[in-house]
Amino acid sequence: MNDTIRSIATIMSDLDDILIFPHVNMDGDALGSASALCLALRSLGKNAYVMISEPVPKNLDFLECGCCTSDDSVLEDVQLSLMLDCNGLGRIPGREEAWARGRLKGCIDHHATTAKDIRYDFSRIEPKSAATGEIIYRLIKDLGAEITLDIANCIFAAITTDTGNFQHTNTTSRSHEIVGHLYKVEGFNSKIISALIYDRRSKEALKLESAILGNLDFYADGKLAVGKVTQKLLKEFGCTMDEAEGIIQRIMSIDGVEAACLFKETEKNVRASLRGRTYANVEKAASRFGGGGHMLAAGCSFDLPLEQAEKELIPALIEVV
Amino acid sequence: MNDTIRSIATIMSDLDDILIFPHVNMDGDALGSASALCLALRSLGKNAYVMISEPVPKNLDFLECGCCTSDDSVLEDVQLSLMLDCNGLGRIPGREEAWARGRLKGCIDHHATTAKDIRYDFSRIEPKSAATGEIIYRLIKDLGAEITLDIANCIFAAITTDTGNFQHTNTTSRSHEIVGHLYKVEGFNSKIISALIYDRRSKEALKLESAILGNLDFYADGKLAVGKVTQKLLKEFGCTMDEAEGIIQRIMSIDGVEAACLFKETEKNVRASLRGRTYANVEKAASRFGGGGHMLAAGCSFDLPLEQAEKELIPALIEVV
Repeated sequence: MNDTIRSIATIMSDLDDILIFPHVNMDGDALGSASALCLALRSLGKNAYVMISEPVPKNLDFLECGCCTSDDSVLEDVQLSLMLDCNGLGRIPGREEAWARGRLKGCIDHHATTAKDIRYDFSRIEPKSAATGEIIYRLIKDLGAEITLDIANCIFAAITTDTGNFQHTNTTSRSHEIVGHLYKVEGFNSKIISALIYDRRSKEALKLESAILGNLDFYADGKLAVGKVTQKLLKEFGCTMDEAEGIIQRIMSIDGVEAACLFKETEKNVRASLRGRTYANVEKAASRFGGGGHMLAAGCSFDLPLEQAEKELIPALIEVV
Repeated sequence: MNDTIRSIATIMSDLDDILIFPHVNMDGDALGSASALCLALRSLGKNAYVMISEPVPKNLDFLECGCCTSDDSVLEDVQLSLMLDCNGLGRIPGREEAWARGRLKGCIDHHATTAKDIRYDFSRIEPKSAATGEIIYRLIKDLGAEITLDIANCIFAAITTDTGNFQHTNTTSRSHEIVGHLYKVEGFNSKIISALIYDRRSKEALKLESAILGNLDFYADGKLAVGKVTQKLLKEFGCTMDEAEGIIQRIMSIDGVEAACLFKETEKNVRASLRGRTYANVEKAASRFGGGGHMLAAGCSFDLPLEQAEKELIPALIEVV
């Protein structure tokens, strides 16, 4: 059963020493939610830290807010270990020992997963919330903490990243209502936060993207568009694969494209990111090759050279457009 | 003095035959606001039309909603001519005669302009509203009309386009609050509307963009980025200049870029679109060449070949970054 936010606030009000665990490969929602809650707890006089085991991504550096540590012994006594925006030990690799130190265990997440490896003392899973940041916003209010400018920035970052800047279908009335409240916080400027997150791409990444978008292949009367990030291109522009982020959304902006595929040639294998617009069930195509995802966003990988991966996947995609 | 929305609703409640005039070069706010109000008025049993004198842009075709006409004589008697999202006869060229037919004249706008060529019977100018659609949403509520799905789509289109999908600094708490209400309308799906507006670019436009973004020039340690849409490129990709829309925002997404300039070589002259990120006062540079705008978004034009326009403008831009 889901605990209520109010009951979780009541439990946490009595605790003083809290470690917060966002998921590995942290994103704006994981880190933004974790820092927002950490700052709120500190404002109430508690000792709180965000436990991480990897560097903060560059475009999210402003969400660190002095909250993050990799030091297991930062708290002498840990009254609560709280998993945020994830569920299960597999999502916090390298931090299992720190996690185990919490005398109580809690989980707040918006992913519809169930972890069987942890027995929580309390948990709240809200699959209909677009971002964990939406749950944390309400928790902070119930804790009686003030929504400061730093907290507002963290919550905004959580919501804007997980909703694809309010464009994904997970966006709800409440997403907009909460963001509407953030605008009332003194000094809040969403433009600054958006620019920090979205507008710090390298010149090289933009050139890489241009090279890929300038060389798309089209199939099925233009309903299927296929792009390729090759090792050769990465070397040519001095980019890493994570700089290809966002290219598939650009492909989807083309008129008439019902499905997009972006092949990513890594050093080990070939991964394919897939998107559908309205009816193209790309998960169906991905699942044929051991991949998965949702109907309109899926992926799979191949232990084959790029050309052969194309020969396997493209016919399967043509079938669904 | 600004009339209140409530008093405007009271006046309009007593009128039956209404023509609505969005501005020329209609955008999502102009057409979305006009169609939303037209549909609401019709739902109240009134005769209402949106008067236009140009084709509806392709990416906004779904906002037409059976409201638009270019037929001056569509109404026998016009009780009200209402200017929407603009102010002044100069903004409704080719429709002056239809405008003159209204026995009452009204204006609802969010631009901080004053027109001296019209005496309105009522007007409401809200420069702090991100979109005229926000004013129209409240007017429709005050008129007592239902926010139907079509109206919700029109209002959403108005707000998302004028706020740059909630990214521009004009976005307010109320913008998000209103959009939050739209999500409660049965069947509302912002993703579908966003896709209609933003995701119907031609392959050729994307190739044009890639060619331009792959060939930017950088000055002042990368703080100034300059792109060029030449006639040669337009011909090469079979594009028109309006398909270069949005490229300057892409240039602004590059890390370290404080100001961006996109030269547009038309058949007549060279236009320059300018953007600043935080401190670069591009209006100052534009004003030197007879242009204008705001501090962070401005433009100017040159009756010179492209190379010479560059030689004039780039040093002025380097000074402001």
